[in-house]
Amino acid sequence: MDYVAALDVGGTTMKGGLVARDGTVHDLRRRPTPRAEGPERVIAAISAFAADLARPRAGIRPLAVGLAVPGLVTATHAVFSAAFGWRDVPVAAFTEGVDLPVALGHDVRSAGEAEMAFGSGGDDVLYLPIGTGIAGALVLSKALYGGAGGWAGQIGHIPVRPGGAACGCGGRGCLAAYASGGAMAARYGVDGAEEVARRAGEGDARAAEVWDEAVAALALALTTYTLLLDPAAIVIGGGVAQAGGTLLVPLRERMAGLLAFRRPPPIRTSRLGAVAGVMGAGLLGWRAL
Amino acid sequence: MDYVAALDVGGTTMKGGLVARDGTVHDLRRRPTPRAEGPERVIAAISAFAADLARPRAGIRPLAVGLAVPGLVTATHAVFSAAFGWRDVPVAAFTEGVDLPVALGHDVRSAGEAEMAFGSGGDDVLYLPIGTGIAGALVLSKALYGGAGGWAGQIGHIPVRPGGAACGCGGRGCLAAYASGGAMAARYGVDGAEEVARRAGEGDARAAEVWDEAVAALALALTTYTLLLDPAAIVIGGGVAQAGGTLLVPLRERMAGLLAFRRPPPIRTSRLGAVAGVMGAGLLGWRAL
Repeated sequence: MDYVAALDVGGTTMKGGLVARDGTVHDLRRRPTPRAEGPERVIAAISAFAADLARPRAGIRPLAVGLAVPGLVTATHAVFSAAFGWRDVPVAAFTEGVDLPVALGHDVRSAGEAEMAFGSGGDDVLYLPIGTGIAGALVLSKALYGGAGGWAGQIGHIPVRPGGAACGCGGRGCLAAYASGGAMAARYGVDGAEEVARRAGEGDARAAEVWDEAVAALALALTTYTLLLDPAAIVIGGGVAQAGGTLLVPLRERMAGLLAFRRPPPIRTSRLGAVAGVMGAGLLGWRAL
Repeated sequence: MDYVAALDVGGTTMKGGLVARDGTVHDLRRRPTPRAEGPERVIAAISAFAADLARPRAGIRPLAVGLAVPGLVTATHAVFSAAFGWRDVPVAAFTEGVDLPVALGHDVRSAGEAEMAFGSGGDDVLYLPIGTGIAGALVLSKALYGGAGGWAGQIGHIPVRPGGAACGCGGRGCLAAYASGGAMAARYGVDGAEEVARRAGEGDARAAEVWDEAVAALALALTTYTLLLDPAAIVIGGGVAQAGGTLLVPLRERMAGLLAFRRPPPIRTSRLGAVAGVMGAGLLGWRAL
């Protein structure tokens, strides 16, 4: 079977693998993203991982490389990332020594494409992975919508509490400053948002407060999204979606309270789970051919 | 020349006229909308105006009627309006005794279509008339976007100050509760928003405060819109747009301050002015044929 090498760069973990045309992921591997060590080290780590994935092994010779990164991304450059603090990184810097066709893309939009192709689908859907950061893939009239300049979907940075908590993007009160996995973990002082969810469930008052503020911020942002774009459904992915009902039940309740004259759309978690990003990077790789 | 009768129902004024295929408006007339007298009286006033417009006169026999109303609207019903407090009004109730093809549509989306057809155009544009109320027409990839159920564009009811001022929609802290012409006039205690703008310009402190809060609310909403949808331009119409630079200059400034990592899109006022709504209703009429 033919494969492409696929690399999905998250704020905490990079996931790589070989992806077949039908979306099957083979040889899935994870490496930590050295975010705290600065953009140069992250770029070097991506480049090393991409080179390893592109190398032939066990009889499989990948045909291309698909690379998905967060932030503002064009086909040729990673323009900006609040998580990594880089600006205008050319695709070649991420794939030094790789002698295959390479396609660069936006992590969340690529994962959204995978969701459309292999997951739950839908004509008008917001696909919203919540991991270390938050961004959305907007499926409008059956197609991914990138906006006038390809920068649509920055829902993580809409101001839900103007003047509030500082965000990595330089703004204040952004959704991501409350509801991203990274922000929740940092606010409570643990390594991951799942720990916040677990302790909130055990009755820890500070954990419950952090979780509630995250849900409140998310409800506000999704209420705004719903009023602007009237989606048929909202699909939440990423690590934070693994909280399931602990997230969805209070989120639905708050949205119903905020929406005065219409119902919230159905909100569910992604069927593809954490592998959506790699599948999306795989779609990029196939497009490079 | 052939004409259709066109009626644009605003929260304060109804505008009617005859509209040719090329958008030319003939015999423009205005009548007050009896909003304070309740939904039944508004429906009766619309019906009487529509019947008058549909009647042959001066050698012109209109071919159809286009009717544009605010709120949630389908082709057959005015489903809901916060301004008028009606629910599920069938199109026939608006056009009693009219013996011509009739098309019902959304006031702002129709005006947005007129803006696309006869105004400034653009592939990815938010067209935002600010009159008694606020709603937006979303032009995405050259087409009006209505969402999964036709309810997209309710930007007037996104929560910019959660728990804040009461809005006619039943919610609190909506954009329209601060930045609509109706809200500004009511908060300052005059008949129209132009009076608020004028007095703010003359140094009246309370008028300046009301105006500033409106601009701040609008800047927040348009920042959110920009981050979500990356428009090429935002075109502001309706009565409040007549304030020109008094609105646009502080609005651009505030948006630039709120957007941490990208520039605001160009923001300008509509070229069609107050007649955009009638031209849009005319497009509905032509479609009825």
